[in-house]
Amino acid sequence: MTDVSALPLYPHRHLLGIRDLSPIDVELLLDRADAAVAVSRQSEKKKTTLRGRTQINLFYEASTRTQSSFELAGKRLGADVMNMSVASSSVKKGETLIDTAMTLNAMHPDILIIRHASAGAAALLAQKVGCSVVNAGDGAHEHPTQALLDALTIRREKGRLAGLTVAICGDILHSRVARSNILLLNAMGARVRAVAPSTLLPSGIAQMGVEVFPTMAEGLKDADVVMMLRLQRERMEGSFVPSIREYFRYFGLDAEKLKAAKPNALVMHPGPMNRGVEIASEIADGPQSVIQEQVEMGVAVRMAVMEALLDPRRNQDGGRA
Amino acid sequence: MTDVSALPLYPHRHLLGIRDLSPIDVELLLDRADAAVAVSRQSEKKKTTLRGRTQINLFYEASTRTQSSFELAGKRLGADVMNMSVASSSVKKGETLIDTAMTLNAMHPDILIIRHASAGAAALLAQKVGCSVVNAGDGAHEHPTQALLDALTIRREKGRLAGLTVAICGDILHSRVARSNILLLNAMGARVRAVAPSTLLPSGIAQMGVEVFPTMAEGLKDADVVMMLRLQRERMEGSFVPSIREYFRYFGLDAEKLKAAKPNALVMHPGPMNRGVEIASEIADGPQSVIQEQVEMGVAVRMAVMEALLDPRRNQDGGRA
Amino acid sequence: MTDVSALPLYPHRHLLGIRDLSPIDVELLLDRADAAVAVSRQSEKKKTTLRGRTQINLFYEASTRTQSSFELAGKRLGADVMNMSVASSSVKKGETLIDTAMTLNAMHPDILIIRHASAGAAALLAQKVGCSVVNAGDGAHEHPTQALLDALTIRREKGRLAGLTVAICGDILHSRVARSNILLLNAMGARVRAVAPSTLLPSGIAQMGVEVFPTMAEGLKDADVVMMLRLQRERMEGSFVPSIREYFRYFGLDAEKLKAAKPNALVMHPGPMNRGVEIASEIADGPQSVIQEQVEMGVAVRMAVMEALLDPRRNQDGGRA
Repeated sequence: MTDVSALPLYPHRHLLGIRDLSPIDVELLLDRADAAVAVSRQSEKKKTTLRGRTQINLFYEASTRTQSSFELAGKRLGADVMNMSVASSSVKKGETLIDTAMTLNAMHPDILIIRHASAGAAALLAQKVGCSVVNAGDGAHEHPTQALLDALTIRREKGRLAGLTVAICGDILHSRVARSNILLLNAMGARVRAVAPSTLLPSGIAQMGVEVFPTMAEGLKDADVVMMLRLQRERMEGSFVPSIREYFRYFGLDAEKLKAAKPNALVMHPGPMNRGVEIASEIADGPQSVIQEQVEMGVAVRMAVMEALLDPRRNQDGGRA
Repeated sequence: MTDVSALPLYPHRHLLGIRDLSPIDVELLLDRADAAVAVSRQSEKKKTTLRGRTQINLFYEASTRTQSSFELAGKRLGADVMNMSVASSSVKKGETLIDTAMTLNAMHPDILIIRHASAGAAALLAQKVGCSVVNAGDGAHEHPTQALLDALTIRREKGRLAGLTVAICGDILHSRVARSNILLLNAMGARVRAVAPSTLLPSGIAQMGVEVFPTMAEGLKDADVVMMLRLQRERMEGSFVPSIREYFRYFGLDAEKLKAAKPNALVMHPGPMNRGVEIASEIADGPQSVIQEQVEMGVAVRMAVMEALLDPRRNQDGGRA
Repeated sequence: MTDVSALPLYPHRHLLGIRDLSPIDVELLLDRADAAVAVSRQSEKKKTTLRGRTQINLFYEASTRTQSSFELAGKRLGADVMNMSVASSSVKKGETLIDTAMTLNAMHPDILIIRHASAGAAALLAQKVGCSVVNAGDGAHEHPTQALLDALTIRREKGRLAGLTVAICGDILHSRVARSNILLLNAMGARVRAVAPSTLLPSGIAQMGVEVFPTMAEGLKDADVVMMLRLQRERMEGSFVPSIREYFRYFGLDAEKLKAAKPNALVMHPGPMNRGVEIASEIADGPQSVIQEQVEMGVAVRMAVMEALLDPRRNQDGGRA
């Protein structure tokens, strides 16, 4: 296992978005995450690097995989983990995000993991609290640990990110996953394509350094990685909700469409999947799918991120302002 | 305290139902559980046998006592315990049980505890994941740790199971508790009776090796154990819901009806109780009641089961396939 | 750090209300809490005094800060902490508070933290269970750890409690916080004032040893501490709900009204705040506000209380009857 204590000090106190990271920052986190993979594969999956540290998961939107992944990552590092879900919180009594954050901050957490429906919520929090903040998804803005775990999965499978062609397909409009992935993959030298109907593309997509394709046949041609997105019907309104049958016919990944990509192309999905909507079950469970690996890498990336942010070398009082 | 490390290796990786267990398997688990009782009675109720192991409680139906019991059992063994309740999960986004399980599996749990409304859910899960699975109740099918804790309670009070007469009374139709108890008690040589109105008996009851009695007076006669069941009115439809007053009159356990059993007969109930429906408060809180002991034995049985399933002798990688 | 093991044994097994405490009891808890403050300010905020002890948080009413505060306090002391929220409990199946408590009790907790809508719920519980009970709010009755954390905050800022003038302002009628604070501050020799419209005063207020003022100008005059309360509109009915605009005009704390108090008067609020209702944001976030300190002291007080109740000197079996 890599001696992560020999790695250089990670320069940031928070992880709010991929936009803040240099390529060196990304490589540093992925190297740490590579080392963390082994921890979860052991029988005794336990480190003590965050012993006595307090991690609070403040989730304003429900999530199985992201919250679980952060919770297990923290526990395996030895941290005390506390989940705050909206349903059981003072939010019902009308308290603002900032007041809730200030209250939690006064309890001396070391790290706050936040998911919120509003873009910018994590950055706002980071200005107000004395501890590290990790953005676990803020509106349609960013979801940086998802992009990092996707990058780790690709790097482990393909040996590199630079020069790869990655097709991101489907509901890009509502996807913070797509946004963070575009930023990270571009920064690391991959060629990023967006494949979607025009109604599911954000307006500024052309300025993000991606090539846009209106059909799967064109967009997947010779791709190294095919990254499918969940169709977020719950975020759409009335007439813009596509029919599932039509959507699957044109943009759902099946064996026929996948043939356009390279023969050993990776198939990815951030989950939860709508089987038969954006992806056929035979592909989701097929030999090119690395969807389960993504979940495994998620725990490793979150361990790496939290260890890097709470590096004891950061300052004497262990990461507080 | 028994040296449980000297016990033979428990032969199963999962605990899905009593039907899979031999009488020797049952005795092995009860012996382990007997040793575990002392742990929770200490001031420092903590072992380290599952240190660094990850236990996930995946409960699709709410439960105070079962989930709490598993959670405390895991924590007292030193495991990292994570609760997944349906309300805060991707189930809302339409993910299937199998996809949720596969996602959790990729996070490298050592043991999954599942409660689900569908019979067979635990067995299905066990086929899909690489870790141990414990069935904490699947539809009207089985609830094996409940039967084990009931058996432990009886064995500690009566010194044995073989040869005892156990009357299981009430809503047997909707009860996985009854089903698992019938299987276990029969296997261990007890004589099992079913006492219920015909509308609350499952159709195959006659083939399960129990003697059926239509009245409490007959069914409780000379019984060593009277096991009451919760009337599950929420699972009944329209015209078949009995009136509480009538039900209590004919099938509610009160002092008068209990006289038919042996003088020192045990009174049991899996909880939560409907006082005044299937059992009178004076009996629930009376000298023959071992209802609190059942709860205490529940923690011990779950500690024993998890230790047995995750026995480090099972294989080198600690129980993974 | 104070050597708390040298402190005298705290004489009570439960903390049900301030009414049960002598001034010496209060000082003892505040001294312990003073020592506990440092723990949460360390990087590794972890003690082992409650290692292997089981703490159950049984919250029948949602609460961000109180439940979180108890949870972190327990974890930092090394206890195994289990949260029971009503939504995921047998309460849905109609189980009574006592049956739930008895069930939990049979699992051998060391300490039960309870919040309940009914006055007296904590005391009822304490009669039924074998472990320590802490009242975390019972109806409009008491909330003793809130009063202790308020006292700790004041004592650390002002050096003492005796002789100070404390104005408690606003919705006293619905406030268990006010009630516990009045009892504690009176016992410790402070002069307590109640400032509220007559419709928000409890009927027995005159017998509680407080001086009642109908206006903020009179009530805050030369006060050392101004303690604002949350306007609990959700507990009010129809015609008695004051208009927010009117309420803020007459009883909301703003810069103008605060001038009546001493120049260095402390401003306190138990949270969650209704900004612009009972307190102006400029005051809540201003230099006299110790609202964040109150939250910090909350964790320390709860650590102190739990350590004191579970003191290993209490008896050989660690606090059980």
